Amino acid sequence: MKIYLAGPDVFLPDAVEVGQRKAAICARHGLAGLYPLDNAVELSADGASLAIYRSNEAMMMASDAIVANLTPFRGASADAGTVFELGFMAGRGKLCLGYSNDIWSYTERVRRREPVSAAGDRRLTDADGLWIEDFGLADNLMIVHGLDVHGCPLIAPRLPPLDPWHDLAAFEACVRLAAERLAPPPKPTARPTMRAARRR
Amino acid sequence: MKIYLAGPDVFLPDAVEVGQRKAAICARHGLAGLYPLDNAVELSADGASLAIYRSNEAMMMASDAIVANLTPFRGASADAGTVFELGFMAGRGKLCLGYSNDIWSYTERVRRREPVSAAGDRRLTDADGLWIEDFGLADNLMIVHGLDVHGCPLIAPRLPPLDPWHDLAAFEACVRLAAERLAPPPKPTARPTMRAARRR
Repeated sequence: MKIYLAGPDVFLPDAVEVGQRKAAICARHGLAGLYPLDNAVELSADGASLAIYRSNEAMMMASDAIVANLTPFRGASADAGTVFELGFMAGRGKLCLGYSNDIWSYTERVRRREPVSAAGDRRLTDADGLWIEDFGLADNLMIVHGLDVHGCPLIAPRLPPLDPWHDLAAFEACVRLAAERLAPPPKPTARPTMRAARRR
Repeated sequence: MKIYLAGPDVFLPDAVEVGQRKAAICARHGLAGLYPLDNAVELSADGASLAIYRSNEAMMMASDAIVANLTPFRGASADAGTVFELGFMAGRGKLCLGYSNDIWSYTERVRRREPVSAAGDRRLTDADGLWIEDFGLADNLMIVHGLDVHGCPLIAPRLPPLDPWHDLAAFEACVRLAAERLAPPPKPTARPTMRAARRR
């Protein structure tokens, strides 16, 4: 069974090594991890970004599940590319799992990043006057409930990891769930059936 | 033909009115616009966020296309919920259209928001040392090329609109494209076929 390994991990200085660690964890659970950087695309070539898109989409089509790193990235929400991929896999009806190495709610993160005020109806708004989703969820409801409906609830640690970009405990919890959900059904026992017994 | 109207417009103080304007534009082009706020969900009810997710997903399943407002939202990228929906519709094989009322590249927006530096290989990195995608695209490559592959290239104005949250010119350009792409094939001419002619 194949797992698409989505996340902004590909932007890390040690992106290749992180992918290898993730693939090794998948292998320990009997799964094959497909990591976007496994596709060899020369970044400076003409059309490189489209070639990356097509390679990633082909990897997703070949995978049985996605494990998405939804740790907030350059803002209060998860990485946009990862979120697109999570939506894509949900749309394809594949098993969707995700984790975040941040322990706060979306609302709390927005509150820490910009001035927030309460409108007349007590709904929170941002500096531009736009409503801030306030359901106590870890991110936008489409992401959080997309996981609930198409896989398993978002996995997050109880305490913030020391190194959120390299701590793979929550990732491994997702892989364990994927292995359970994708495991082939147990083989029937060897006892002959009534029909088989009669034939003898 | 039905169009799912995705975007952070639902967070605007005049969210309902913006949805009505969008639906009116769709109607002028012979299309039915489905807007998330058309689903009546009581925000303070238990399980409201899951009910919203399920309603939005049902609307997407019922739609032939998506027109996504990908104007940057609380960060350098588009709204995460909208991006999930764009990915979902791409995964379903539906026609994908999107617009942004911002004229800058993703790289330029990150540069304006946080300190950026050039690594040894001249790749740009952010304050955390993570690589900044630098393909000159309007957003993460999965979003931009997701549109290229599953619909039409991202629509953006040449000059920044005075009111990016209410200017619907780029939106209407998407709807026009959707109407062209979803139009039923022209009816065959009334000339009788050979077989029909022989029967007379």
